[in-house]
Amino acid sequence: MVGGGKDAFIGAIHRIAANSDGLIELVCGALSINKDIAIDSGQSLFLPQQRIYLTYEEMIEKESKLPEGERMDFLTIVTPNFAHYGPAVMALENGFHVVIEKPITFTIDEAKQLKKKVEETGKILALTHTYTGYPIVKHAKELVKQGALGKIRKIYVSYHQGWLSKLSEREGNAQAAWRTDPKRSGKAGAMGDIGTHAFNLAEYITGLQVTELSAALNIVVEGRALDDDGGVFLKFNNGATGVLTASQIAAGEENNLFINIYGENGGLEWHQQEPNTLLVKWLDKPTEIVRTGMGYVSPIAKHNSRTPGGHPEGYLEAFGNIYRNFALTLSAKLNGETIDSTLIDFPSVDEGIRGMAFIENVVKNHQSNEKWTKFEI
Amino acid sequence: MVGGGKDAFIGAIHRIAANSDGLIELVCGALSINKDIAIDSGQSLFLPQQRIYLTYEEMIEKESKLPEGERMDFLTIVTPNFAHYGPAVMALENGFHVVIEKPITFTIDEAKQLKKKVEETGKILALTHTYTGYPIVKHAKELVKQGALGKIRKIYVSYHQGWLSKLSEREGNAQAAWRTDPKRSGKAGAMGDIGTHAFNLAEYITGLQVTELSAALNIVVEGRALDDDGGVFLKFNNGATGVLTASQIAAGEENNLFINIYGENGGLEWHQQEPNTLLVKWLDKPTEIVRTGMGYVSPIAKHNSRTPGGHPEGYLEAFGNIYRNFALTLSAKLNGETIDSTLIDFPSVDEGIRGMAFIENVVKNHQSNEKWTKFEI
Amino acid sequence: MVGGGKDAFIGAIHRIAANSDGLIELVCGALSINKDIAIDSGQSLFLPQQRIYLTYEEMIEKESKLPEGERMDFLTIVTPNFAHYGPAVMALENGFHVVIEKPITFTIDEAKQLKKKVEETGKILALTHTYTGYPIVKHAKELVKQGALGKIRKIYVSYHQGWLSKLSEREGNAQAAWRTDPKRSGKAGAMGDIGTHAFNLAEYITGLQVTELSAALNIVVEGRALDDDGGVFLKFNNGATGVLTASQIAAGEENNLFINIYGENGGLEWHQQEPNTLLVKWLDKPTEIVRTGMGYVSPIAKHNSRTPGGHPEGYLEAFGNIYRNFALTLSAKLNGETIDSTLIDFPSVDEGIRGMAFIENVVKNHQSNEKWTKFEI
Amino acid sequence: MVGGGKDAFIGAIHRIAANSDGLIELVCGALSINKDIAIDSGQSLFLPQQRIYLTYEEMIEKESKLPEGERMDFLTIVTPNFAHYGPAVMALENGFHVVIEKPITFTIDEAKQLKKKVEETGKILALTHTYTGYPIVKHAKELVKQGALGKIRKIYVSYHQGWLSKLSEREGNAQAAWRTDPKRSGKAGAMGDIGTHAFNLAEYITGLQVTELSAALNIVVEGRALDDDGGVFLKFNNGATGVLTASQIAAGEENNLFINIYGENGGLEWHQQEPNTLLVKWLDKPTEIVRTGMGYVSPIAKHNSRTPGGHPEGYLEAFGNIYRNFALTLSAKLNGETIDSTLIDFPSVDEGIRGMAFIENVVKNHQSNEKWTKFEI
Repeated sequence: MVGGGKDAFIGAIHRIAANSDGLIELVCGALSINKDIAIDSGQSLFLPQQRIYLTYEEMIEKESKLPEGERMDFLTIVTPNFAHYGPAVMALENGFHVVIEKPITFTIDEAKQLKKKVEETGKILALTHTYTGYPIVKHAKELVKQGALGKIRKIYVSYHQGWLSKLSEREGNAQAAWRTDPKRSGKAGAMGDIGTHAFNLAEYITGLQVTELSAALNIVVEGRALDDDGGVFLKFNNGATGVLTASQIAAGEENNLFINIYGENGGLEWHQQEPNTLLVKWLDKPTEIVRTGMGYVSPIAKHNSRTPGGHPEGYLEAFGNIYRNFALTLSAKLNGETIDSTLIDFPSVDEGIRGMAFIENVVKNHQSNEKWTKFEI
Repeated sequence: MVGGGKDAFIGAIHRIAANSDGLIELVCGALSINKDIAIDSGQSLFLPQQRIYLTYEEMIEKESKLPEGERMDFLTIVTPNFAHYGPAVMALENGFHVVIEKPITFTIDEAKQLKKKVEETGKILALTHTYTGYPIVKHAKELVKQGALGKIRKIYVSYHQGWLSKLSEREGNAQAAWRTDPKRSGKAGAMGDIGTHAFNLAEYITGLQVTELSAALNIVVEGRALDDDGGVFLKFNNGATGVLTASQIAAGEENNLFINIYGENGGLEWHQQEPNTLLVKWLDKPTEIVRTGMGYVSPIAKHNSRTPGGHPEGYLEAFGNIYRNFALTLSAKLNGETIDSTLIDFPSVDEGIRGMAFIENVVKNHQSNEKWTKFEI
Repeated sequence: MVGGGKDAFIGAIHRIAANSDGLIELVCGALSINKDIAIDSGQSLFLPQQRIYLTYEEMIEKESKLPEGERMDFLTIVTPNFAHYGPAVMALENGFHVVIEKPITFTIDEAKQLKKKVEETGKILALTHTYTGYPIVKHAKELVKQGALGKIRKIYVSYHQGWLSKLSEREGNAQAAWRTDPKRSGKAGAMGDIGTHAFNLAEYITGLQVTELSAALNIVVEGRALDDDGGVFLKFNNGATGVLTASQIAAGEENNLFINIYGENGGLEWHQQEPNTLLVKWLDKPTEIVRTGMGYVSPIAKHNSRTPGGHPEGYLEAFGNIYRNFALTLSAKLNGETIDSTLIDFPSVDEGIRGMAFIENVVKNHQSNEKWTKFEI
Repeated sequence: MVGGGKDAFIGAIHRIAANSDGLIELVCGALSINKDIAIDSGQSLFLPQQRIYLTYEEMIEKESKLPEGERMDFLTIVTPNFAHYGPAVMALENGFHVVIEKPITFTIDEAKQLKKKVEETGKILALTHTYTGYPIVKHAKELVKQGALGKIRKIYVSYHQGWLSKLSEREGNAQAAWRTDPKRSGKAGAMGDIGTHAFNLAEYITGLQVTELSAALNIVVEGRALDDDGGVFLKFNNGATGVLTASQIAAGEENNLFINIYGENGGLEWHQQEPNTLLVKWLDKPTEIVRTGMGYVSPIAKHNSRTPGGHPEGYLEAFGNIYRNFALTLSAKLNGETIDSTLIDFPSVDEGIRGMAFIENVVKNHQSNEKWTKFEI
């Protein structure tokens, strides 16, 4: 693991998610650029002294010299956005598979180069767009794919948080500090941090792709350097349209990601904060409450849950699904087996590139006077 | 009453709403342009034979000759949009007050002239933007007014229905037929029919006014003549921004009007389909569930409800509040009394003009390539 | 109307409910035993001076002497429980139909005698067990009747309020004072006031009858004279069992009446505070959200609603349904027509007797050491 | 681990829960009494060949001979109820700590003897009453403890499932088979399997103890040997009363455990299926929605959650909290440190005994004609 020391947030989440199925074990780490934190964090995670590294370069170099079966199998990168690309490329080049916290890179060019590297090396890359890991989200994708709703016509997707309602980046909030800093976060603030999740979710469930957009970004809190709020009108490749909103100044909201998708025959509604329930609406009959773990859900939803109906699964299990599917894929590859990719899926470098392109295109449109611009990669 | 015969929808709603408090009685009607329907409808409403009229002109003329105390006090207009202006002006000119189903007129010019007529005659005009009649919506307005949320920053308002998911106007649905017909409905379809309600709700609760907008309208169902779906980015006069969406092709939705408003300190959330609950969200403490009829709500919410907490009030009571407040205002005027307008409010000609301007401005922006255009009246 | 003066609660509800459909008009009243309140209340309701009476005896006597077509058609009784029987009997004997607020009488013997009187006179009596007036409750009854759930096995019904959490009857709360007073309220407190509603709802929806019960009543607030909380285990005539709870010390609850009914194939769930939604649960497929006003609901639900789906109906409309169905039945009777009783129903004297028997049997069982006792009438 | 082979349910849950924090590692197992399943299961969990045992006796014996630091630290028992006591006692006697799936034993006598054994050996025993592991349940306990609600007066707790609506034990459902078999499950069916969870939850949150009860059990599905449904009236040691219901024939329910607790000032409501939300109700102000992970929750709730607000935690995390707190306690004990038991708690042998006593007392009361009987241990 690169990053994820004691002062970080998402590293611990990755570790729990990776641990949970007994398929993955943390064996080494370059957990912080701060030496003391790196060592202290490694010790508290019971890492052997010699595998607590101070830089990712050192880690990759030394690990690659360990005998097979002993050295790490893959590298997880949980550093701020600007520090994704370096370790990812080096890992791939040295024969390690890679898991990266989203967004995949700092710029879209890095993302494209990373794709080339993945193709060259034949290694596996997983990108932790967590929300598509929820079983019922996968069931929703399946419903759309099977045509249950008819042609998709309209997509509303929103991701609203309130935690940046104040200028927290100036008040010692480290998370706020790097996420609102163009040098560490990238071209966009809220739209990059959470808008990309909404974008990914919409494309994942519908299987459609955005082709044009019209964006309006706002910096609501005075003194902030990046957008903390915004909206995007979307056109999709089948003629459907959409509205995507992202905000980090929606005071009082926690992590309110929700999506509504409408087709000719009916619609879907899902709220991340109650993630085990999918509402399936119909033109002429009652709305159905489809629930994780029930006997009637599709095989992909079953594969991606761990408990029977009524035993709520949460964010960590959704996260765990990415790791589990990555591990199953990796293990199949090592054993020369094939996997059933209709059950075992996870976001990878293509989703990463589209996410970076979303940021690029939104910012470009926002800055122009043209209403609609093409979605270009 | 003009319009509202047996084949109509909203007329019956107006009658129930007007009846409910025992303040208003239906005394005459020109209920349909179809003679048989007009007579039949009048009889089934127990109207005296001689006060069942065949045209509004006849009604206004004859009623104005009846002795005071016997003749009607005001005229309710529940015809399709294109037939609002005529009876409204004639009624005002002949000394009758007026209640009009929204939108106030067919064009914004008619609306402006109607305003002049109201000012000239000193008569009272009520416009039935029903959703602002809900007690808890009025409480929400009061919370914003008192500054509980701090400066308002962001408004999301949506009105989603599914009933026009098919080309129902060609399948004998009379409601669908006139509402999708530019000659009877006006320049906009969904945006005029329901988008204006969303717009009115947002301005009502926040006390803000839209100053600029960027719109994207869609005709989703092939063969339809007016927009059945659309979105609008909004800028408000205090610097806040908003996103308004309206759709009548959101298959499986009933009458899903909802609003989220965020200020510096917290936010509000209200869903019309569960209209007795207002969520009040805070940055640093638990979300509160504020409920109609409870002891703690503001005086305006109390005045506008009829039952104690836990006895749900609905759409008809919200509608009834407009009639009741109109009747109380009328009665105070007749008796030379003053009313407490902080408790007794209803939409009138100014809201009507802003609604028409919303339609005009949205359509104009949609048709232009400019992203943002000023909201002009 | 007997009772329902300015200081009362339920009288105003009855008036709004009766008004709403334009079928019923208040023509006279003995609105209070306090002369000033009686007169003042009558005037504020626009009653003619000579039809504001001071006692129900005077009213019935004088009204019965008015010419047909002018005199009142029926009498509504909204006095405290102990004062139901007198006016009801006198009204029936003098040729008037009767509407009574529940519980029907003070004792079960009065209820039985009232039934005889109804049968003798052939007059119509409606009892306002309001909650069975909700359209979706009627749809639930229809689902059970059609066997959708299979044989009914289990019924949970609860009615929880918090308004008697303090000794409010000693703090000037008039409602609390008579409802907790054995001389005015009867043998039971909460179990009579609201437990009977829960009992009525369970028997109404399922079409079953309680045959045995086991009860535990509590006086939670020190100093109170009647139960303010309690539970009852029930056995029904088809072998099903049930649990009924009623409480007025459930601090923080408004008017939380809810019911769950389970059969062999599935279950129903309804909450009075969100009265337009019925959850229909199934063994092997998703729960359905059945909603008032939608095209798919049964004819009885359609007859008993006034607005299309998504326009919430509330308590006043449920109440209004009892009055409307009563008025339609009355009108059919006067015109010698027959009505469709599968659409037009309302609680009457039999429901009143069962309600009184419920109170008797619960109190008797509670006071005994026997666990189970027969439900006797 | 004893039990939990490939054909079992709860074993996998225990493993995920134990894994998730990186504090616990599965090192050996006697996973099934079926040799092939035991071996196959052990291999698929990557256990070393020599630590896949065929019986618990063999495992305890051999493990206890391994050097400290290499041998297992504690034993998890996930066999059917009748097979809890044997391995538990043997483990304690051989110096191993123990985790047991609930109910603790087959009979109350076994439970009492186990307690003695725990006291004699000084070892730690954790009982996986999972539902008290939810962070917001712990917050609820804290609220009650701090007196926020005043004296507790009323407790409603229900656990409703539908999975035994048919005679599944005869249709090859292994879970159903042992849970409805008196020889493997014990004296009670639903009341033992899930009623004990409800009982434990009520006592945990309130800190009160049941002193008297009145029970009514039912065998609803013909041919079943144990109760599949029942209700219990409860009296608590502070004078509060309660109603507990448990059903496994509530067709269409998943795992619907919910609780309402009312005190003098307000109430609490929690639903296991949406476990991150606690409703806190007040007499005179709006209900509050208290949510897992928010800054305002109490320290015990914070200690027991892993993600920030809005990232839903689920059943596996609640389960994991028992393991984590057990591991932290164990580790502190091994290191001679003290732990903060106001943060780090888990159910143990006392809760186990009370659970067994609940079963005994419920069955005894049900079989008697006496309405109320003392809760005896």
